[in-house]
Order: sequence, then structure tokens, then C-alpha cells
Amino acid sequence: MSISFEIDERVAGIARRTAEFVRDVVIPEERACDGDVHAGPEPLRRRLQEGARAAGVFAPHVGEEFGGLRLDLRGQAVVFEAAGYSLLGPLALNCAAPDEGNMHLLEVVATEEQKARYLRPLAAGEVRSCFAMTEPAPGAGSDPRALATVATRTSGGWRIDGRKWFISGADGAAFAICVARTSGGPGDPGGATMFLVDSDNPGMKIVRNIDTLDHGLFGGHSEVVFEGCEVPDSAVLGEVDEGFRYAQVRLGPARMTHCMRWLGVARRAQDVALERAADRSAFGGKLAELGMVQQLLADSEIDIETGRAVLWRACWELDQGRSAAQHTSIAKTYVSEAVGRVVDRAVQVCGALGISGDAPLSRLYREVRPFRIYDGPSETHRWAIAKRAVRAATERRETR
Amino acid sequence: MSISFEIDERVAGIARRTAEFVRDVVIPEERACDGDVHAGPEPLRRRLQEGARAAGVFAPHVGEEFGGLRLDLRGQAVVFEAAGYSLLGPLALNCAAPDEGNMHLLEVVATEEQKARYLRPLAAGEVRSCFAMTEPAPGAGSDPRALATVATRTSGGWRIDGRKWFISGADGAAFAICVARTSGGPGDPGGATMFLVDSDNPGMKIVRNIDTLDHGLFGGHSEVVFEGCEVPDSAVLGEVDEGFRYAQVRLGPARMTHCMRWLGVARRAQDVALERAADRSAFGGKLAELGMVQQLLADSEIDIETGRAVLWRACWELDQGRSAAQHTSIAKTYVSEAVGRVVDRAVQVCGALGISGDAPLSRLYREVRPFRIYDGPSETHRWAIAKRAVRAATERRETR
Amino acid sequence: MSISFEIDERVAGIARRTAEFVRDVVIPEERACDGDVHAGPEPLRRRLQEGARAAGVFAPHVGEEFGGLRLDLRGQAVVFEAAGYSLLGPLALNCAAPDEGNMHLLEVVATEEQKARYLRPLAAGEVRSCFAMTEPAPGAGSDPRALATVATRTSGGWRIDGRKWFISGADGAAFAICVARTSGGPGDPGGATMFLVDSDNPGMKIVRNIDTLDHGLFGGHSEVVFEGCEVPDSAVLGEVDEGFRYAQVRLGPARMTHCMRWLGVARRAQDVALERAADRSAFGGKLAELGMVQQLLADSEIDIETGRAVLWRACWELDQGRSAAQHTSIAKTYVSEAVGRVVDRAVQVCGALGISGDAPLSRLYREVRPFRIYDGPSETHRWAIAKRAVRAATERRETR
Amino acid sequence: MSISFEIDERVAGIARRTAEFVRDVVIPEERACDGDVHAGPEPLRRRLQEGARAAGVFAPHVGEEFGGLRLDLRGQAVVFEAAGYSLLGPLALNCAAPDEGNMHLLEVVATEEQKARYLRPLAAGEVRSCFAMTEPAPGAGSDPRALATVATRTSGGWRIDGRKWFISGADGAAFAICVARTSGGPGDPGGATMFLVDSDNPGMKIVRNIDTLDHGLFGGHSEVVFEGCEVPDSAVLGEVDEGFRYAQVRLGPARMTHCMRWLGVARRAQDVALERAADRSAFGGKLAELGMVQQLLADSEIDIETGRAVLWRACWELDQGRSAAQHTSIAKTYVSEAVGRVVDRAVQVCGALGISGDAPLSRLYREVRPFRIYDGPSETHRWAIAKRAVRAATERRETR
Repeated sequence: MSISFEIDERVAGIARRTAEFVRDVVIPEERACDGDVHAGPEPLRRRLQEGARAAGVFAPHVGEEFGGLRLDLRGQAVVFEAAGYSLLGPLALNCAAPDEGNMHLLEVVATEEQKARYLRPLAAGEVRSCFAMTEPAPGAGSDPRALATVATRTSGGWRIDGRKWFISGADGAAFAICVARTSGGPGDPGGATMFLVDSDNPGMKIVRNIDTLDHGLFGGHSEVVFEGCEVPDSAVLGEVDEGFRYAQVRLGPARMTHCMRWLGVARRAQDVALERAADRSAFGGKLAELGMVQQLLADSEIDIETGRAVLWRACWELDQGRSAAQHTSIAKTYVSEAVGRVVDRAVQVCGALGISGDAPLSRLYREVRPFRIYDGPSETHRWAIAKRAVRAATERRETR
Repeated sequence: MSISFEIDERVAGIARRTAEFVRDVVIPEERACDGDVHAGPEPLRRRLQEGARAAGVFAPHVGEEFGGLRLDLRGQAVVFEAAGYSLLGPLALNCAAPDEGNMHLLEVVATEEQKARYLRPLAAGEVRSCFAMTEPAPGAGSDPRALATVATRTSGGWRIDGRKWFISGADGAAFAICVARTSGGPGDPGGATMFLVDSDNPGMKIVRNIDTLDHGLFGGHSEVVFEGCEVPDSAVLGEVDEGFRYAQVRLGPARMTHCMRWLGVARRAQDVALERAADRSAFGGKLAELGMVQQLLADSEIDIETGRAVLWRACWELDQGRSAAQHTSIAKTYVSEAVGRVVDRAVQVCGALGISGDAPLSRLYREVRPFRIYDGPSETHRWAIAKRAVRAATERRETR
Repeated sequence: MSISFEIDERVAGIARRTAEFVRDVVIPEERACDGDVHAGPEPLRRRLQEGARAAGVFAPHVGEEFGGLRLDLRGQAVVFEAAGYSLLGPLALNCAAPDEGNMHLLEVVATEEQKARYLRPLAAGEVRSCFAMTEPAPGAGSDPRALATVATRTSGGWRIDGRKWFISGADGAAFAICVARTSGGPGDPGGATMFLVDSDNPGMKIVRNIDTLDHGLFGGHSEVVFEGCEVPDSAVLGEVDEGFRYAQVRLGPARMTHCMRWLGVARRAQDVALERAADRSAFGGKLAELGMVQQLLADSEIDIETGRAVLWRACWELDQGRSAAQHTSIAKTYVSEAVGRVVDRAVQVCGALGISGDAPLSRLYREVRPFRIYDGPSETHRWAIAKRAVRAATERRETR
Repeated sequence: MSISFEIDERVAGIARRTAEFVRDVVIPEERACDGDVHAGPEPLRRRLQEGARAAGVFAPHVGEEFGGLRLDLRGQAVVFEAAGYSLLGPLALNCAAPDEGNMHLLEVVATEEQKARYLRPLAAGEVRSCFAMTEPAPGAGSDPRALATVATRTSGGWRIDGRKWFISGADGAAFAICVARTSGGPGDPGGATMFLVDSDNPGMKIVRNIDTLDHGLFGGHSEVVFEGCEVPDSAVLGEVDEGFRYAQVRLGPARMTHCMRWLGVARRAQDVALERAADRSAFGGKLAELGMVQQLLADSEIDIETGRAVLWRACWELDQGRSAAQHTSIAKTYVSEAVGRVVDRAVQVCGALGISGDAPLSRLYREVRPFRIYDGPSETHRWAIAKRAVRAATERRETR
């Protein structure tokens, strides 16, 4: 076994079908909603997912027993990029955030009963879900230890109290996975626990849908309040006080699946720019013959190629069963920034067209900016990357 | 006389009053429209301009005979930056694009009658105007020589035919200054002429308002068709065939006034970030104590300070009556990119808040992107800058 | 078969032995010559190569029949990076430029007799060689079609006339592979032919050793004149007029082996910076705890990791027998720039130490700069990358 | 009085004469020493300074009573940039570091007797001097509070003990201004005192000349040991315990004069690149017609113009008698990085020539790198810039 960038045949086939499905079915649907799915239009979601099922590309990340194709992360990397070519593609394949990460978490941590009740309909696209972790300042943001939402013991269960925001997909979700503190206090790690909360629980309320720069996340981002929210013991996901650890189980791969989907966005933006540069004349020639335009185009090719390579590396590490924290931090930081650069350059190449709604670029421009912030802002990842590198260097020296 | 960065007292007074007016009157108005004035809400415009008049800061760039304060460009640089602290500030002072540039052009080129009919009400804020030059591909974009709109001689006047787009403020404007080819054909310079076209002219039609990334330009950006648009000889602005030259008369200063206003935007974004960094705690301290956050904040201070210095330089050159093409190209390119970086960093410092509508940053983020494209994309300016530098170096050598 | 970053066991073993050999034998030799081997000190070279042979890591890229380990490019990527950790490492393993590229070219193109006479002693480290292609302006530089050196037919052979410069390793080389034009004229592609020229040929003269920023190339860079240089027909390497094509045979992999070695340099610089940051106190803590230092260190980790991933990708493509022009251009451009950034940051982290001879960094800083210029400057590669991307986009569209 | 970039006539005349002197006299001297003056060749220095005196441009920064032209900082900005066009220019005008900063400090702080003994011959170019502040880790580097050299009271004087390094110009200097701690201990600010130490003092020893990346500082950079170094009370420069404050008196302007000189270096590098681009043909045209080359050239014009503008701003602030700490930090950080970018781009434009000794660029490339480290590394300045900006924002808010 040695270094290989070969995509195995089954994966290549699914990716090819996904690309065709996106081109022929998904992209034509973009116009209708103008890329804005914050309102969560259910008929569109149903229609797209039926299409994906018909194309044989539905739920590529989920186990067969739940109706999926059980691709490992490397396989997902190839297929999700193809899906991400349209902002609606991952929704169609039922591999969009936050559902995709929740499915993964449930597959790993949930009991059989929880799987039957929550994972099965989620994987089938019958319901949606959300992941309620982030809190407004001074709560849990880029520093999870600041977690302020509290779950306290009741007879036969727990009562959750706290405020969450930027809870993606909450509006319309059938249930939330809510992270609450079960020991310690804000600022010290202590212990967190994950709870499965049905959205008809009277203690959980969506207090507003937040107006954000991006509009491409189905259902948008909400502020959610848990107030005297009572849940039974069976709502505990995994072990009590192990929530921070599970968050990592979810976030490591979830960061990578984000990167996969966004690489598709970058590829889309670059293709728009390439076609425009090939067509548009200026200064006595084609745009594509101007050196500065070539530089923009070449830099984006480089960004996409390096981003994909480093992402595949991280996926391979995770597929080997390693924690791969350094690899995933590097891939997330690099890809999120590279994707932003690619879309920005595509806008520049396309000029006035790039900032108008006549091309998809101004929409993509808005969508990709938050990616440098969520799932850990670049600064938090760089801090972690440097710390690990310094520690490794120190250990290397000590063993000499 | 030697190098000085002293702001003279009168200008400093106007700037101070502008800053207070923006803070006390204009910013509170932002919420109502959420920074979106593409629809051109007239009551808001009237209210803001009355406020500016009351504060003694109305029309700072216009001659006294038209009710203004007759500041030179250096004075404008100081005052427009203060106005630009809110996206609505320039509108309030009646110094927003495109009216401000049109007023300048009319003051320099128009006949007395044209001034009475067009400049006077425009300077007074009674009407708005637009500048119809840019065309969809393959027409005049970053390369003005591609001008495709044509004006042909009729008995006693001209007939204009052509399609324009991204005509800012066209919807609701009382008149357009339309640039049309009067000799030569697309691709060769030939001659262009500027025409004053009343918006009730049946030959001028707004065919759509373009959906764009930015929403802060009063009246938005429209696609406008001139079809058999008949105008009398008195509609000719300046001399026939001198339109490309007048466009430079307009664009040199207009580029600089854009920079002034946008520096105010940058300052606003940076202030939001500074206050957030001072308040928000994370990782056991204030954000403002984290090195990577400090780097973001410091880089933005550097960008604003260098941008302002190089802008003032260009304004001083123009105030000396020089063409200053190299200085204005450098200032436009640098400031437009610096402002973009500053807003981007402010978003990053503020995290989730930065991409939500709870802070003005996500709005500002969308507004500043097009600035690297309009008034000449960065690439066109860099091309011109390099060409002039090479020519100067060659001449220097030849005279040795 | 699917995506894998597994290093096979044999390669891993060779890499481990190389790393130990570099650490224990090569680095201690650095001080003696202070990293400056432009003078080509033969005793040092002999000593180092004997060491490598003893360690079982000599000539990893060469076929077994010539005494090597016959690693494919992926294997070389791993081992050459380990060797590159010292500037003297590749010399020790006999895999330094330009000999390494020449060995590859000879293995692919040379006749059996040529192999016996030139490749065998070269692979064994008995002699050195050079590759005479680059010419001073207006000859062949980043644009090979400008080739001005001419070979003309004589009875029974050829006569070569022309001037070459930046011919690395020429001083002390036993022979040169000289590229000369055999049809067409400068500016049109025409045909070039490669000739094996013994350095005792009276028609080949080293006219000076060029003073360059880097000092780490054994034998330095020379200006070489061919004047009435007569060679027999047996000196033709491969086919007449196929020289431009062979240049690509040599340059594709040679660019990659450069990247491998320089990644080792980057790793070395980063390790120096990491150790310094872990040790040095300032502002009441360790350097490694300061956010801006962490950012420098993290960015370098990202650069190294992404550079390695994209390099391995290109190597895998080449190992599949593909031309991989786009992949090698991307890898060369990215890695050369990434390595430069890593060394620059390491200098900054180390401060005064970084610019002194007390650490290896100021030497490395000088060595890496030319890498963005030779083997095709970044601009030439970007031009080619953009052209290929535009062509591919156009073809994609046409087949839709 | 308002914003002006007018250079007053007297300054313009001195600058013109300086430019001519540099072109006609100084640059021809460069070849002899190949830009390397670390050995401190006295005959060259004498010759150059006689030339400057003859040209009427000697000691432009010093008061007339000491034989200078008493330019304020804005005047120096113009003239020093002209001088800096050659690395030898500032030496010729006797305005090179560290002497120029020492003269300034002595003019402001020294007693009349000290001025007669130290300043007069220094200003006249009869002797050289050095400034002994920086210490090897863990002493005073970018954090001056770490000062470890100690001065202790003796009867009738002081005894200095400590180790200094990177003491520029020490080898060959007639005296040192040594900064030593006179109260408190390393890590707390306490008090430092400046001492005038004659270089024949047996307690002051140059222990080695440090090998550094740059070679353009006359006399190089030395490691200096003070061991039982006895000085009388009259050797105290200014007040006891005020040394940290005086260091700022020296460093504020000294940072700016560095920037002035280095802008000259940048201009030189850019001119070499411009001429090369205008002359050199490649790919069927001149280099100067290639878009990517134009981008490199334009970016450097922008860097120089913005750097000069922000530098002039800081100089004006200092000329008004303000501390201008924020302005000088911004100017130093920006100009040092901009100059580095300009030289790097010039190298790239010139290709092989750029990294050879055939053009001055490879020398300049080495010279400018340390500028981002000395006089406070960019990171230290950014930290200070951010802190001041946050403090100002907080105060602004509190007064609302």
C-alpha cells in the first residue's frame, strides 16, 4: 500500500451521477429560490431529495441499514464536492449541515431506540434536525468551555435552561441535539451532556430567526431558548458529562464535510469565471488572454487543488481511525480561506456581472464568508495548530 | 510652504459638525431601512437632508452660489470621511454618488442655462440624477473605448440609441447624463458626447432594477434603454466629441470622493471591531488581549492610516490643478482594497455577530466589495499605473 | 484501490535512516563549510556520500543496476524531503540538482553506451554533471523558444556555438548535457537537440562563476561558452530535434524533486522557529504563547502540510505515467512560494538570531529565494495553469 | 494652513543635489566594495563624505552650529530618500544609522561639554559612534524591560557590567552610548541610564563581529561586553534613570529616518525592475507588456507611494512636537514591509539577473530583510498599535 490519489470505481460512479444530477436537476431549481432557502421551503426539499433518490445518490454518508451508501470520508470528499457545485446539492443528497453531522453523531453514539426514533427518519429525509451548542456572548462560542446552558437533575430526567443562537436549521427541525452543562461552571471545562429534545417540547422556543449574511442554509439560523425544558433520562445521548468529547466526534468529520461541500462552491465559482474569461472581450482580446486575469484564474486553480489535496489527507487520517486533530484543523483553516479567495477572484474576473444577481457569484460571495468563522474561526484553529506543533517539537527534542 | 497634514479650522469645524450629525441623527435612522435604500425612499432622503441643512453641513462640495460650502478636495476628504461613517451620511449631505460627481461635472462644463435647469435643483437636493455610461458586454465597461451607444444627428438635435446598465440612481432620477458615441465605432476611441436627458423623455426607459450585492446606493442600479431617444442641441453637455475627456474630468475627483466616503465606512467597521474586542471575553481574557485579534486590529489601523495619507496626496495634487492620473489611480486602487480588508477583518473579530444583522458589519461587507470593480477595476488601474511608471522610467533614462 | 497517504514500509525505512543520517552525520558537517558549497569542495562531497552509502540511503532515485534504490516519485518525495532537512543532505545521497535530473534523463533517453559512459559513474558519485540550457537575455530563459545556441552539422558530427549562464554545477562537472537549436530560429519553436559534451572539450569554456544570492549548490552557477565546440554523432542524446520534448521529460520530475528537497528546508526552518519559540521568553511569557507568533507558526505548518499534499498528488500522477503538466505546475508554484514564506516567518520568529549566522536561517533565507525563479518562474507557471484551465473549461462546455 | 504635499524650495534643492551626487559619485563607488561595508573601510567613508561636503549636502539633519543643514524631519524625509538610493548614500551624507540617531539624541540631551566632546566630531564625520542597547536573550530585545546590563554606583562614577549584541557600527566607533539598568531588575521597567563610553575604555570589549544577512552597515554588527567598565559621573547622558525615556526620544525619529533611507532603496530596486521590464523581451513582446509583470510593477508603485505618504504624515506629527507614537509605529511597520515587498518583486521581475551579483538586487534583497526586525519587530509594533487603538476606542465611548 502506498500513496494514491486513485478514486475507487464505485465512488467515481456515484460522483459522476451526482455531477450529472446537479447539472441537470439541481441547478435549474436554483433560479426559483434565488439560492435563498432560509425560509426552508419544504416542497423544494422534497422534490430535490426525490430526484437524488432517483439518481441513486441519496444519503451517501449513511449506513445501508438506514438507506444510505455508507461511503467513508474519502468517498464523501469526492461525492460531496460534486454535490456542493450547487448550494442546493447537499440538501438534495440529504448531506447538508447540520443534519449530516447529526446523522454521523447518532450513528456513533445513539442507542438502538434512539436510532429508530431519530436517526431513521432523519436519514430518510422525513424530518430535519438541529444542533444546539453555540451561545451568545459570554457563552459558548469559539471557546466551548464557556458553556452556560445548564441541565439539572429532576426526578426521572433533566431540566434544561439556557439560550442558544446561530442554531442552523432549527426552524422546522423535528428535534434538537442540545448541549448543556451538567457539571462545573462557565470557564472551566467541567462536563457537558447531549440531550435529544423534540421540537414540540414546550420548554424549547425559537425566539427569532437571525438575519445573516448567508441565505443558503435550509431553515436559516435561529436563536433558541430552553426554559424549564424537561426531558426524560432516555433523552440523554451517550453518557452524562461526555458531551464535550462527543462534540469532537461530531466536529472532526463535520468540519471536513463542510470543506468538501465548499470546495464544490469554489469549483462552481471558478468555472463561471473561466467561461466568462473565455467569452468576454476587452482591450482588444479575450479577458482570458490578459495576464492579470490569468493570475487570478491560476491562483484559484492552485487554491482548489491544494485545498482538495490537504482535505483528502485529513479524510484519510480520519478513515484510519485516528483523531487527526492537527490534520483537520489545517484542512478546515486552509480550505475555508482558499474557498473565500476563489469566490472573491471569480467576482473580480466577472466585474459588474460578478456583483449582480445575473450570475450566481454574488450569492456565493455571501455564502462563503461565514465559513471562516463557524466550526471554529481561523484564529482558534491557528492557535491550536501552533500549540500542537510547539508541543511536538518539544517532545522531539526531549527524545533526542 | 511645506508638507503639512494640518486640517484648516473651517474644514475641521464642518467635519466635527458632520460627525456629530451622523452620530446623533443619521445612525439612528439606519435601523429603519436596515441600510437598504435601493428602493429610494424619498421621505427618508428629505428628512436626512433637512437635518444636514440644519446642522450647516449640506452640500459641502458645491459652490456657494448653489447653496454649498465650496470645499476643495482636501476639505471634502475630511468631511466626506466623517459623512461616510454611516452609509446614509453622504445621502444626507447630498454628496453621495452619482449626484456629487454630476454636480462637479455640471459646475465645470455646463452652460449657465444648463446650470440653472439641472445643477441648481440637484445641488439643492430637490431632484436626483444619474450618469449613464456603463454598458453590458461587449459595450463600455472597464474599457471605455468599447462604447456602443450611438447618438446620430437629427434636424435640430440628436437621437440616442443604446443599452446601459448598472446606472446608479436611475430609478427616481430627474435626468441622466448619457454618454453616447458621436464618431468612430466600438473599439476605437473616436468621439463621445455627453447629453442631458430628462427622465420623462419617452425614448429613455428603465427596463429593470438590477439585483446587486450592495444595497446602499439610493435608487439602486438599473438597466436603462435609450431607443430613438430624441434630444435638442441644447441637451449637449460641453462640446460634441469631447465626452471621453469630460468623463475623466468627472472620474478623477469622483474616484477620490468614493475613497473618502468609503474610508468612513472602514472607520465605522473598525470602531465596531475595537469596541467588541474591548468588551468580549474569550479564553480567559478580553478578545483585545489576544495576539491574533490584535494583529487584525493593527492591520486595519495601518490600512486606514495609509489609505487616508495616500488619498490626501492625490487630492492635493488635484487641488493644484494637475491631472494627477497616477496619484488618483494609486489612491483608488489602494483605498478600495484596504477598505475591503478592514471590513473583512472587522467581521472576523466580531465572529457570529459580524455575519448577523445585529451589527452593521454584514451590511458593510456587502457594500464594499463592488468598490474594487466600479470606477475602474483594480486590474485596469494597475495596468495604467505600470504603463505610466515604465514610460517615466524610460524617459528618465533617455534624458540622462 | 482508493485514496491513501500510507507510506509503504520500505520507503518509510529508507526515510527514517535518511533522517537519522542527516541528523547525526550531515548536519554536523554544515558548520565547516557554513552551508557554502559553491566552491565545490570534493573531500566534503566524498565524505558525505560514503556516509550515505554506509547508511544504505545512497542514490534512492536510481535503478538498482546503477547502484540505486529505484524509488518511484512518491518514494522519492518522502526520502528527498528527509534529505533536504540539511542543504548538504541531497548532495550526500547523490540526489542533488542538477545531477539527479540528469540521471533521470539519461536513464530514459540514453543509449546503452551512453549509459555506461555517463550514467554509471554519475550514479556512483564518481563524477558530477551539468545541464546547459539557460541563456542570458535575449536567449532561452523562462521562454525556451528563445533558444539561441546553435548546433550545426559537420562531417561526422556537430559544432555547437552559443552562450549559457546559470549552469549549475558546471565548475567541476565531468560533462554537460547541452541544449542547442538544430532547426528554426530564436522565437519560433523549431527543434532543439541535446548533446553530451565532455568538459575537457576545448570548445566548451567556463568563463566565470556567477555571484548569486544562494550558495548551497555544489559547484555554484557558471557562465559557459560553447565556441566551435565539436562533438561526434554519438554525443547526440536521444533524437535530433527532440530536445524540447526531452527537456520536459527532465523538467517535470525535476521540478518535483526540487520541491521535495525544499520541503525539507522548510521543515528545518520551522523546527528552528518552533524550538526558539518554545525556549525564548519575552513580555512575561514564552514566545510560543504570543498570538502573533502562534499565527506565524501555524501558517507555516499549514504551508508545509498543503505543500506536501499537493506535491504528492503531482508525484502520483507522474508515477501513473501521465504528463501531469497541470499538476506539476501547480505543485512547483505553490511549494516554491510556500517554502519561501515558511523560511521568512522562521526568520521573523527568531528575530536578531534569525538574521545572524548563529542560526541556519539567514543561510536558508538566501537559498530559497531563487526557487521562485528557476525551473520556470511563478509567472510562467501561472500563465500555463490559467491557459490549461481556460481550455479545459471551454472543452467541457462544448461537450455539453 | 491646510494639507499640503509641497516640498519647500530649499529642501527640494538639497534633494536634487543629493540625487545628482548619488548618481554621479556614490553609485560608481558601489562596485568597488560590492555594497559590503561591514569591514568599515575608512578611506571610502572619507572619500564619500568629502564628496557630499563638496556637493553641499553633508549632514542635512544636524544644526548649523555643528556644520549641518538643520532640516526638520519632513525635509530629512525628502533628502534621506534621495540619499538612500544607494546603500552608500547615507554614509556619504553622514546620516547613516546609528550615527544619525546618536547625533539627534546628543543634540537634545547632552550637556554643552558633552556636545563639544562627542557631538561635534561625530557631526563632522571625524569619528563614528554606536548605540549599545540590544542584548542577547534573555536580555533587552524587542522587550526593553528585559534590560540586564547593570550600572552600579562607585565613588565618583559608575561601573557597567553586561553583554550587548547587534551593536551596529561598534567596530571602529570612537564611543558608545550604552544603556544600563540603574534601578529595578530585568522584567520590571525600573530605571535605565545612558552612558557615554569611550571605546578605549578597557572595560568595553568587542568580542566578535556577527555574521549577518545584511552587509551594508558600515562597521557591521558586533557583540560587545562591558565588564567592570568604569566611567565618571560626567559620562551620564541626561538624567539618571531616564534612559528608557531617552531611548524613545532617539527611537521615534530614528525609526522614521530608517524608513526614509529604505524608501530610497525601494525606489532603486523598482527603477532597476522598470528598466529591465522595458528592455527585456520574452514571449513575443517586452516584459513590461505582460500583465503579471505589470501587476508586480504597479504593486510596487503603490507600496512606495503609500509608504511615502504615511511616513510624511508621521514626520509632520513629530515636527509639531508631538510624541506621535501611533503614527511612527504605523509608518515603521508599513514601510519596512512595503520596502521588503518592493525589493522582492524587483528580484522576480529581473529573474536570473535579480538573484545574481550582476544587478544590485540580490544585495538589496539581503539588506532589507532585517528591517522588519530591528527598531522593533513588526509584531511588537502591531501589538502597540492595537493596544492604543483599543484604548482610544474605549475612551471615545466613555466620553459619549
